[in-house]
Amino acid sequence: MSKGVTKQSEDFPKWYTDVVTKAELADYSPVKGSMVIRPYGFALWENMKAALDNMFKETGHVNAYFPLFIPKSFLSKEAEHVDGFAKECAVVTHHRLRATADGKGVEADPDAKLEEELIVRPTSETIIWSMYKKWINSYRDLPILINQWANVVRWEMRTRLFLRTTEFLWQEGHTAHATAEEAEEETLKMLEVYRKFAEEFMAIPVLTGPKTESEKFAGAETTYCIEAMMGDKKALQSGTSHNLGQNFAKAFDVTFQNENNEQDLVWATSWGVSTRLVGAVIMAHGDDKGLILPPKIAPYPVVIIPIFRDDTKDAVMKHTEKITESLKSAGVIFHLDLREKMSPGWKFNEWEMKGAPLRMEIGPRDAENDAVVLARRDTGEKITQNIGKIGEFTANLLNEIQNAMLEKAKIFRDDNTFDIADYDEFKQRNESDGGFYRAGWCGSEECESKVQEETKATIRVIPFDENPSGKTCLLCGKKAKHEVVFSKAY
Amino acid sequence: MSKGVTKQSEDFPKWYTDVVTKAELADYSPVKGSMVIRPYGFALWENMKAALDNMFKETGHVNAYFPLFIPKSFLSKEAEHVDGFAKECAVVTHHRLRATADGKGVEADPDAKLEEELIVRPTSETIIWSMYKKWINSYRDLPILINQWANVVRWEMRTRLFLRTTEFLWQEGHTAHATAEEAEEETLKMLEVYRKFAEEFMAIPVLTGPKTESEKFAGAETTYCIEAMMGDKKALQSGTSHNLGQNFAKAFDVTFQNENNEQDLVWATSWGVSTRLVGAVIMAHGDDKGLILPPKIAPYPVVIIPIFRDDTKDAVMKHTEKITESLKSAGVIFHLDLREKMSPGWKFNEWEMKGAPLRMEIGPRDAENDAVVLARRDTGEKITQNIGKIGEFTANLLNEIQNAMLEKAKIFRDDNTFDIADYDEFKQRNESDGGFYRAGWCGSEECESKVQEETKATIRVIPFDENPSGKTCLLCGKKAKHEVVFSKAY
Repeated sequence: MSKGVTKQSEDFPKWYTDVVTKAELADYSPVKGSMVIRPYGFALWENMKAALDNMFKETGHVNAYFPLFIPKSFLSKEAEHVDGFAKECAVVTHHRLRATADGKGVEADPDAKLEEELIVRPTSETIIWSMYKKWINSYRDLPILINQWANVVRWEMRTRLFLRTTEFLWQEGHTAHATAEEAEEETLKMLEVYRKFAEEFMAIPVLTGPKTESEKFAGAETTYCIEAMMGDKKALQSGTSHNLGQNFAKAFDVTFQNENNEQDLVWATSWGVSTRLVGAVIMAHGDDKGLILPPKIAPYPVVIIPIFRDDTKDAVMKHTEKITESLKSAGVIFHLDLREKMSPGWKFNEWEMKGAPLRMEIGPRDAENDAVVLARRDTGEKITQNIGKIGEFTANLLNEIQNAMLEKAKIFRDDNTFDIADYDEFKQRNESDGGFYRAGWCGSEECESKVQEETKATIRVIPFDENPSGKTCLLCGKKAKHEVVFSKAY
Repeated sequence: MSKGVTKQSEDFPKWYTDVVTKAELADYSPVKGSMVIRPYGFALWENMKAALDNMFKETGHVNAYFPLFIPKSFLSKEAEHVDGFAKECAVVTHHRLRATADGKGVEADPDAKLEEELIVRPTSETIIWSMYKKWINSYRDLPILINQWANVVRWEMRTRLFLRTTEFLWQEGHTAHATAEEAEEETLKMLEVYRKFAEEFMAIPVLTGPKTESEKFAGAETTYCIEAMMGDKKALQSGTSHNLGQNFAKAFDVTFQNENNEQDLVWATSWGVSTRLVGAVIMAHGDDKGLILPPKIAPYPVVIIPIFRDDTKDAVMKHTEKITESLKSAGVIFHLDLREKMSPGWKFNEWEMKGAPLRMEIGPRDAENDAVVLARRDTGEKITQNIGKIGEFTANLLNEIQNAMLEKAKIFRDDNTFDIADYDEFKQRNESDGGFYRAGWCGSEECESKVQEETKATIRVIPFDENPSGKTCLLCGKKAKHEVVFSKAY
């Protein structure tokens, strides 16, 4: 711990792994592709989860829980869906182990082979729509606005902590509606919840809009996304909201009696974000010293480190108590680091690495002067402040940090976003500098996949604020149907 | 919905299933043995979870997340552990599906067979202790006080909603300590947290103490439990806390350097409660009308049903608003049932079935009289109350209901707990009346299993307040080593 991390400029992926492991956010597990989320990383996720859950409930959603296992045959019911997920799923074939012949180990018991194999859910549309068939009869049963917090499994060959793991934690909303309009409205409403959450809590600005046909969810009519820029100027898809049309209602035969007494197929949406967002926070804000956490989701927005020797302990601790009392009254969450075996300098380094937004140093001189030193993690600035109304002062400063982090990330993204029309220039700059490139696109999958082949950049989003008029396709030069954003991505 | 439930006296198991499904707590899923927790049931579980999580954090614990999958070989490392769990676990053998030859379905792809099968966790001691080995070097790394909220899978042949399902949700605490004393202290501390939670939140009195050798957790030195009486006078094991000694440290070779610079094996505990507790709440309090929920964990402690016609709507709704404002100021959580298609009578029945602790009926006459009618679910009592300080009045009444429910459950349990010394009398009464029987026991597994064979009653707990002196074994008549509690159980 606290031995420092690789520099971002030297090796960004290594910097990332260093930060995740040294700041004790997560660790590799003995199960290939699965990680362990350690307490500090889990506390960060819990804060993100609580904020999101609150926003879901405010928009009328309720939580429920559906089975981990999905009968194999369910996956096949929606043709695109099975194509999208069959290649990467964990298959349960037996329900018992028995001792091996040599008595030294265990093996799957052949007598306990399942009649129908079970799939560990990669996503829950199929199991949930099999239940919606049971629950939906009439328009009076609609809408259903259910969210689930769960673990899902997608077998990944190349994994990276938080960003791509075989098992991950996420939420998946699954809603059922009486009309196409209502489903589209819901899809966009939840995209807006994700945008708001990304910007207001994670301090990460995002682009919003639909994905292209080739990038959409397996089984969706339209997939909308929020797309963020990381510190290495690559894109990270941070959340998706799908309008599923009547595809799953068709697959599971879910009809309802509408207000005109006619039978109609139900309209569906689904939407999700995952522990991948922890990776987004790390890569959008971190620096060469480690993590920088936004105050609203940091496990400890403030870390207090008293500095004393035996003869100054009483004075310093009395002073510290005054400060913590004031923080409590102001509703500021803090952590008092009283570990005796570590030096103050060691603690400074550790909390810098762990990204605590604000560090308070309290020494004997501060006690004498009724003061405290506040060190901002985002700017490195140190502020000496009188402790009168220190709670209120700190709460305001945390807000300021939260806003400054979003502003900084916005400037970084905008500085690295380029309007471009010339394909050769794009290829060169994308290769050397990375970044987001707004360009015209004719709408053909051919041009889209050719760009990807040649540059590794993909169309991340067709931004809502696109302006294709007068533009031509970056590749073929034909009239642009859309203005899109190209970028290399995670 | 609201068609009423089977009477408890007629058929208690059927009453239970009726309540669970008709009150929309849970539903059967298409996956054998797995259930769907519906929004109302999940909201109940969320409230229980939040209260427990708070108590865990107050006692110094932090949350983390470990992998769902456990390598097969890990299970075998602790001999008793593998014996306890191998017979009921889901085995993942493949990581991909492929299309069947006829193109109509999918099957496990033989080319994607795993080198080592993975077990879906039935409990996480093995995967967690494999990580503790990595994290623990010195006494400075101890204690580790980690809890995990997770889903686990134990293949059950005979399942019952909430009480015994193949997949269930739970929390599992896993702690590591430097000394045997500290581990025992932790084991008992968490048992006490469970007791407090059961009594103060679920309003269920519990017996506490160790299990016998034959009933303890596979891999534990001692298993302590909280044991509750259900409405049919059977016992429900509601939570367990295990002192694991050094068994898992031995199995995973987890040593640490102690303060004397010697290598020593780490001491362990684990403790858990599950969604089974939802079943406990249902069966401890419910009656022939359905659920009765304790106010502290009810999704809606108060349900408000305005009653009006077109000409009285304005007055009633204005009056309702005054009441809800007052409830909000007093911090009372309520649900305003404004569904237009259902009659007030229908709503009364539904919320009775769903166990809302307090129902408020607000009609035109109440608006005129500045009054409101409160109907207690636990006693059926109706109270007409002036709406001055109605928030405060309601908060106090909810507390009163919470206490009354615990008191009622205590009296029921005590009335159905018998001191007994004569085996024949025990057999007869246990058969006809059920209940808890406090009796002497010589301590032999032989007598224990014989009683079970002949009466289906097991030793539920060796209660902390046992008084074996002067007692003889219920079966063999020898001097009693312990006073124990016999009962039929879930």
